[in-house]
Amino acid sequence: MKKQLYILQDILGTNRKIAQEIKAACEEKGVLVVNLMSSPGAGKTTLLEKLAERLKNRYKIAVIEGDIETERDAERIRAKGVPAWQITTGGACHLEAKMIARVLPSVEADIDFLFIENVGNLVCPASYELGERVRVVLLSSPEGDDKPKKYPKAFTTADVLVLSKADLLPLLPFDIDRAKKEALDLNPSLRIFVVSALTGEGLDSFIEFLVAAHAALRPADA
Amino acid sequence: MKKQLYILQDILGTNRKIAQEIKAACEEKGVLVVNLMSSPGAGKTTLLEKLAERLKNRYKIAVIEGDIETERDAERIRAKGVPAWQITTGGACHLEAKMIARVLPSVEADIDFLFIENVGNLVCPASYELGERVRVVLLSSPEGDDKPKKYPKAFTTADVLVLSKADLLPLLPFDIDRAKKEALDLNPSLRIFVVSALTGEGLDSFIEFLVAAHAALRPADA
Repeated sequence: MKKQLYILQDILGTNRKIAQEIKAACEEKGVLVVNLMSSPGAGKTTLLEKLAERLKNRYKIAVIEGDIETERDAERIRAKGVPAWQITTGGACHLEAKMIARVLPSVEADIDFLFIENVGNLVCPASYELGERVRVVLLSSPEGDDKPKKYPKAFTTADVLVLSKADLLPLLPFDIDRAKKEALDLNPSLRIFVVSALTGEGLDSFIEFLVAAHAALRPADA
Repeated sequence: MKKQLYILQDILGTNRKIAQEIKAACEEKGVLVVNLMSSPGAGKTTLLEKLAERLKNRYKIAVIEGDIETERDAERIRAKGVPAWQITTGGACHLEAKMIARVLPSVEADIDFLFIENVGNLVCPASYELGERVRVVLLSSPEGDDKPKKYPKAFTTADVLVLSKADLLPLLPFDIDRAKKEALDLNPSLRIFVVSALTGEGLDSFIEFLVAAHAALRPADA
């Protein structure tokens, strides 16, 4: 067991080093890197489609999609007129910084936002920094309000919680106050947005937050 | 990388060996072991609550719950009058056979069904046999009909697909024929049940299947 543990620490240490290089290089260029994590089907790609629609006329954005198999999510983003790169991990349950580092040279340098959609998994991606300035975890209403404490690391390491599929809330036994409280108990500095990508509820506030985070990257230019 | 790969193979080989021992020991005693896998919030625990209600008067059943943190799921099962053991993995994204082997001596030997609820994760649990005779993957309607090919291993290795939260189908853009086709393309022998634990739809057929699988364990006694 000890041998495995050392190797894991080594992988995480190497990953963090590459992530920090990505972060520094992107922020120096004024690129806000956003890492989106969630269970499969919590609505990451649909949220990105909506962000693409609303941001693309004012900002240059790009998307990196992580999936175990298929190019489907990148195709959905490209259909919105936004460049997207698909990483297929071929079985691996999370993205790693080195995968991002391999794609980055293909991404134009003068973008404002780089969104990275992680593999759908509420557990493993939380252990791997990808160079993001903003880490977002999505929890969709059909998943249930009891998930933060059952899957704590995604919530303790995130900067933002998006409670997604808010349009389904009236139909489901989801106590939004309980979900918020559990998440804030784990991470009191979490920013929480209640969002429905379908109806548009909450999107404006989330976009305002992202735009402000982008602007804060280079206060000297303001 | 090669070193990591060998160690991973070693872990999986050791896991399989323990799983096979569990499988042989349980089946010899007429215990049907069922491993339930899915994303977080697809409805594994709610399905188990319903199975407990319906099976407990005719059969002796027991449940092992796997979670990263909290005893919540085991408490929900115990509230149905069924014995349940909680394994908290403390971060690990899946159950392993050795964790089951540690709990098994506490479980009564004369049970008919042992249900194991895996950690909510559509990726990692698929690589670890736990000694199950029947491997069930749940896909809930809010997750989307495109998931089988994006997360193939859970579907290629399962015996049964439960399409859960069927009561929400009329409200969601979920094409059930597409989901079934994708799953059957990956695994033509998959048995598929469309189930709503809330309304009871499809539960009878699924229970019939489980009862027949249990009966088939010891045809000599029939």
